[in-house]
Amino acid sequence: MTALDGLDGFGVEVPSWAYGNSGTRFKVFTQPGVPRNPYEKIADAAQVHRLTGLAPRVSLHIPWDAVDDWSDLREHASKLGVRLGAINSNLFQEDDYKLGSLCHPDPAVRDHAVRHHLRCIEIMRETGSTDLKIWLPDGLNYPGQDSLRGRQDRLAESLRRIYHALGDDQRILLEYKFFEPYFYSMDIPDWGTSLLHCLALGEKATVVLDTGHHAPGTNIEFIVMQLLRQGRLGAFDFNSRFYADDDLIVGAADPFQLFRIMSEIVAAGAHLPSSGVNFMLDQCHNIEEKIPAQIRSVLNVEQALAKALLIDQEALATAQREGDVLAANEILMAAYETDVRAALADRREARGLPRDPVKAFKASGYASSVAAERVGGTQAGWGA
Amino acid sequence: MTALDGLDGFGVEVPSWAYGNSGTRFKVFTQPGVPRNPYEKIADAAQVHRLTGLAPRVSLHIPWDAVDDWSDLREHASKLGVRLGAINSNLFQEDDYKLGSLCHPDPAVRDHAVRHHLRCIEIMRETGSTDLKIWLPDGLNYPGQDSLRGRQDRLAESLRRIYHALGDDQRILLEYKFFEPYFYSMDIPDWGTSLLHCLALGEKATVVLDTGHHAPGTNIEFIVMQLLRQGRLGAFDFNSRFYADDDLIVGAADPFQLFRIMSEIVAAGAHLPSSGVNFMLDQCHNIEEKIPAQIRSVLNVEQALAKALLIDQEALATAQREGDVLAANEILMAAYETDVRAALADRREARGLPRDPVKAFKASGYASSVAAERVGGTQAGWGA
Amino acid sequence: MTALDGLDGFGVEVPSWAYGNSGTRFKVFTQPGVPRNPYEKIADAAQVHRLTGLAPRVSLHIPWDAVDDWSDLREHASKLGVRLGAINSNLFQEDDYKLGSLCHPDPAVRDHAVRHHLRCIEIMRETGSTDLKIWLPDGLNYPGQDSLRGRQDRLAESLRRIYHALGDDQRILLEYKFFEPYFYSMDIPDWGTSLLHCLALGEKATVVLDTGHHAPGTNIEFIVMQLLRQGRLGAFDFNSRFYADDDLIVGAADPFQLFRIMSEIVAAGAHLPSSGVNFMLDQCHNIEEKIPAQIRSVLNVEQALAKALLIDQEALATAQREGDVLAANEILMAAYETDVRAALADRREARGLPRDPVKAFKASGYASSVAAERVGGTQAGWGA
Amino acid sequence: MTALDGLDGFGVEVPSWAYGNSGTRFKVFTQPGVPRNPYEKIADAAQVHRLTGLAPRVSLHIPWDAVDDWSDLREHASKLGVRLGAINSNLFQEDDYKLGSLCHPDPAVRDHAVRHHLRCIEIMRETGSTDLKIWLPDGLNYPGQDSLRGRQDRLAESLRRIYHALGDDQRILLEYKFFEPYFYSMDIPDWGTSLLHCLALGEKATVVLDTGHHAPGTNIEFIVMQLLRQGRLGAFDFNSRFYADDDLIVGAADPFQLFRIMSEIVAAGAHLPSSGVNFMLDQCHNIEEKIPAQIRSVLNVEQALAKALLIDQEALATAQREGDVLAANEILMAAYETDVRAALADRREARGLPRDPVKAFKASGYASSVAAERVGGTQAGWGA
Repeated sequence: MTALDGLDGFGVEVPSWAYGNSGTRFKVFTQPGVPRNPYEKIADAAQVHRLTGLAPRVSLHIPWDAVDDWSDLREHASKLGVRLGAINSNLFQEDDYKLGSLCHPDPAVRDHAVRHHLRCIEIMRETGSTDLKIWLPDGLNYPGQDSLRGRQDRLAESLRRIYHALGDDQRILLEYKFFEPYFYSMDIPDWGTSLLHCLALGEKATVVLDTGHHAPGTNIEFIVMQLLRQGRLGAFDFNSRFYADDDLIVGAADPFQLFRIMSEIVAAGAHLPSSGVNFMLDQCHNIEEKIPAQIRSVLNVEQALAKALLIDQEALATAQREGDVLAANEILMAAYETDVRAALADRREARGLPRDPVKAFKASGYASSVAAERVGGTQAGWGA
Repeated sequence: MTALDGLDGFGVEVPSWAYGNSGTRFKVFTQPGVPRNPYEKIADAAQVHRLTGLAPRVSLHIPWDAVDDWSDLREHASKLGVRLGAINSNLFQEDDYKLGSLCHPDPAVRDHAVRHHLRCIEIMRETGSTDLKIWLPDGLNYPGQDSLRGRQDRLAESLRRIYHALGDDQRILLEYKFFEPYFYSMDIPDWGTSLLHCLALGEKATVVLDTGHHAPGTNIEFIVMQLLRQGRLGAFDFNSRFYADDDLIVGAADPFQLFRIMSEIVAAGAHLPSSGVNFMLDQCHNIEEKIPAQIRSVLNVEQALAKALLIDQEALATAQREGDVLAANEILMAAYETDVRAALADRREARGLPRDPVKAFKASGYASSVAAERVGGTQAGWGA
Repeated sequence: MTALDGLDGFGVEVPSWAYGNSGTRFKVFTQPGVPRNPYEKIADAAQVHRLTGLAPRVSLHIPWDAVDDWSDLREHASKLGVRLGAINSNLFQEDDYKLGSLCHPDPAVRDHAVRHHLRCIEIMRETGSTDLKIWLPDGLNYPGQDSLRGRQDRLAESLRRIYHALGDDQRILLEYKFFEPYFYSMDIPDWGTSLLHCLALGEKATVVLDTGHHAPGTNIEFIVMQLLRQGRLGAFDFNSRFYADDDLIVGAADPFQLFRIMSEIVAAGAHLPSSGVNFMLDQCHNIEEKIPAQIRSVLNVEQALAKALLIDQEALATAQREGDVLAANEILMAAYETDVRAALADRREARGLPRDPVKAFKASGYASSVAAERVGGTQAGWGA
Repeated sequence: MTALDGLDGFGVEVPSWAYGNSGTRFKVFTQPGVPRNPYEKIADAAQVHRLTGLAPRVSLHIPWDAVDDWSDLREHASKLGVRLGAINSNLFQEDDYKLGSLCHPDPAVRDHAVRHHLRCIEIMRETGSTDLKIWLPDGLNYPGQDSLRGRQDRLAESLRRIYHALGDDQRILLEYKFFEPYFYSMDIPDWGTSLLHCLALGEKATVVLDTGHHAPGTNIEFIVMQLLRQGRLGAFDFNSRFYADDDLIVGAADPFQLFRIMSEIVAAGAHLPSSGVNFMLDQCHNIEEKIPAQIRSVLNVEQALAKALLIDQEALATAQREGDVLAANEILMAAYETDVRAALADRREARGLPRDPVKAFKASGYASSVAAERVGGTQAGWGA
């Protein structure tokens, strides 16, 4: 299947925080061997890349992953075969942020949040990261709590200050989210709002699409298409959800949706490294083992992309032009129904990678080895 | 309450099709006295204005409301005390439109749909209408059925042709809708897509927000604020919904949401006639009497606006600035909880209008009179 | 794959109304060759069975499918290789039913609706049908419109009268629906309400689960499991939906959900004819050709069942017992990812059926032949 | 307004955990003066009752609120003018419960969870509580993770053991929840499942309805009506939500829905103490002050009940019987639109309570007094 050559060069950036403990507001269940610092997180992430060849970069979250010597961390990653990726600015774990960060009514709090980004941009210079990812958790719980409009204006001003600090090869990835951690209104609730701020900022601002951040029933591949059409799709946060922002393994809840998303990606050639779209995971493995869950996740993305590459584009275009609804749909479904698992295992084998990366991970003894090693200290956590 | 002076000059445009029969895909229940032509529809609409003073204009739907002599229809309206309002272009009732209109894969169909709009623009010159309202019912039922991206490009081109035909005092109102009559994807599914097309077209293109056209849980007043902030909120289609595009009487399902919407309107001064926002109804009275239902609707909008005008803006701004969540919310709720019915009845009385317009309509004998008169012919219908 | 022997004896009942024209409240698009009467509908349905071996029965809708001579219709079906299936009582197309049928405030309307069911039961005796399927379209559009509780009590009484008229080998299939054609409240909105009425009636009353009749996010396979556990799952209405009751081809919107549903079916042995579960379609082919769409539908159900039969139940049970979340999920996904299309084509071939039934239908010339024949008369319609 | 006499004897049970810190999975913001133990929580709850006369009982959560000397805690409450209410069993904060509690695949974990309830029942004997409230947080994150059916069977058995330990004057309140903390499936996801378990257990098992635990678009008052009709509505957990289980102040998101719920309550006489329905709050005050938020909450419930008591039931029944949709709706809305704030303030004054309880609380100095006192120790938390 030469169509699968389209997988060459495709990679998924993995998040450092996926290897730490995570949970719901009700409970965080801990796991043995969970990393205690950025070095250990990167070591875990490197396992995913070692076994799949699909995860060449690791996103960092600041201040969670802040270290004193960035070149040392960079070298550590390099030795393990991975690179440092996007820098995520944390805007939700300081007490000052109770009523918002970049949108806060108090200019002092906004200034504090802006300066956190300036620091992130400095870190990017040291890590060689090009992407500053901003997920704005700001929002309101009660109608009337603050001025919706006033918050937009403050946000625009805060973003402007951050944008102006960007270097030439740096960009902002601006994320939107439908609800949570606030419930009445988020300050960037939808792709339209994110895009408007990006347009106001300039060409170095693009939108991040997290697959779990939409209202029920939203056609996500439509948004992917629209952002690509505008040249403003900067990155994905992949995961899956049944109802809210569940942050489950990508492809676990609706594999057909993932395939449809990847089909829009392929139709626009956006799976090619030259497209500049950063494919990332943003997941929480609350009850399952974290490293195998990340392995499964990158394999699921690859599988969906592989199927999308198998679509007979010519036949599809013909059926669409002729208005043959059933034929066009069947052409799409034929690609989706194809079992690509063996072909992908062959591909891995040909590259010196294990046919079954999850099995290989289990056989490697890595999990028990780190469980024994990483005793004492504080386990890193999503939210810690 | 001098705050209620803000109601002066406020009006709601009513749709000609609300007076015809309507229903669901399962059944259209007919009612006695339903109008059989545009003249009779306008006569019914004029009743709403006569009794409330709130409905000075009637929207038309083309070709449903096409007549040979437009100046005659205009004069008819004028004699009854109302004016002709927005022209709505119907894109869903021709067999050619099965797979779309302005987005259709076949250029001949697109051309046909574009030319329908050119005709509508000519009609606008004759009726004196300034607003061309386009609700695009185009969409897909099955993944793969057509190219999502190709359809956007065709849409952009079709809209460009229409836009260029506009006169200086004419504008496009471009509506979006989450789902229905297609289910997999609509071609203008959200405000972001509508706005992008408007931005590409130019300043005479603005967005229509139909309160029933969103995913569940969407914060509609946020969108109102955002479109006002962009200077692109052209019009409302008011109605209410519990789940889908139910097209029930505005304020019937969630009166607090209507109040929050009107609060954003008031905060931006957009209730004033100078704002250029066209407040319209788009409803279907499937089981209730149509004229009283329209009367109730315009009264509900007025009531929500009245309450929004009562918000103590100064106290609200203070509480917001101080981050007093409970106080700010309570100030908003105090306006909402106020019973404004008597004050609005007083206002009507002072203007020579009935205190209880629904009661006055029932007492007028209009319903039985038209039921007797309008025998024979074909009742007009929404969808007929 | 001997697991696929579990497909033996499995069949899907097809609805007579799927072959007629259907649409949305906006427009019904007509198609050439659409049947004009029950005889022609059954002829079309027989094509589906002839080419797939999967559709041995045809559901009828009364009064749409009422004929004078039932034994003649029965013989007609028999000659074409199919049987008459469930009788569906239509409660939504009489003017009397504007405010309800079995729940209507007026006892005369309720009586009328009950007597319609008594007639349906008589028809069942003549057609040999055992299943009386009741989808109650009753509901309210406005809060306060009627007493929610009063309507339940009236419904219980109406159902009791119908239940008592059932013969020993007859049963009621009671359907529920979340919304539509009423929007504020349906009188049987959920499986809990349907089941409560069935429990009150007796053992010959069971629940129908229509896959499109739930709130967004509902876990449908959970309900399948629960109803099977209670011994009260009488039938399925298969279709698929993206948002509302879209009535699209089953498996078109979320094939993984269909697989999960069939997995619960297999886990309970409910795919076997002895289970008494009636697997039916309830779909509307608004824009696609109807017979090929029905063929695709029964093939999709068979495909999902085939995959469910491939689940390694023993390994799954072990992983579940051991709490190995990832392993258990992977065992399920391995069955889902298997491409069963070739195996199912082989199976068809071995039974003298075409490998590709849709292609065979197109090659058969049936469509053009009926398009030529069925000129004049009124095309049957869903809702006609 | 003598209709408001229906408020006599009406009270709302407040939860001990509402006074502790709470938050989302992202962050728990702490507040000064938050209680550090059950004694301090009860002291805070007593403030609500002191100022409103509406909150005579406090629910406890075990083990959060476990003390050594229950009669001492009982007396402490009594001195402060309140009583101990329902006992809530916590099933989500032990590491053993990662894959479930009463449904866990391992019988040892199930037994541990059952024994926790037996301990709760003993506590009830000491506190004089009659209600054992069980919210089962069990569920699955991934399809295939465990057997949906097996879990129901285990749950039934676990509940049976608990039920048999109940005293004559004790009952189970069994709660359902749509999603969270698990995302693929909850083990009691809907009222139907909860009711089926109650029916299997016996008459001392009833359903708890939490207003935030439903799919979007669910008609909650219908469920209230149905459970009352079955005689199985045991309790409410009031709160409000815009999208998920937001746990905001009841009446803050959709006051009209709260009114509709209370209207069903009034229609069935279930607001009277004799009905046995336990009206409770279950809320999290993440960003607002906790005691005033609880005061506002009980006032909101009272306000909705007061409006429901004002419905002209006779006129409503007539309009409903006559099928006058608009009139019936208007009668309901007339009660809703009535501003009852002054009448309720009068009522409070007549009983020696402050007209404005929130203002009175602020004036009391209680907040600053406890902030000064409660220094050191660990603040109690929801989830702590």
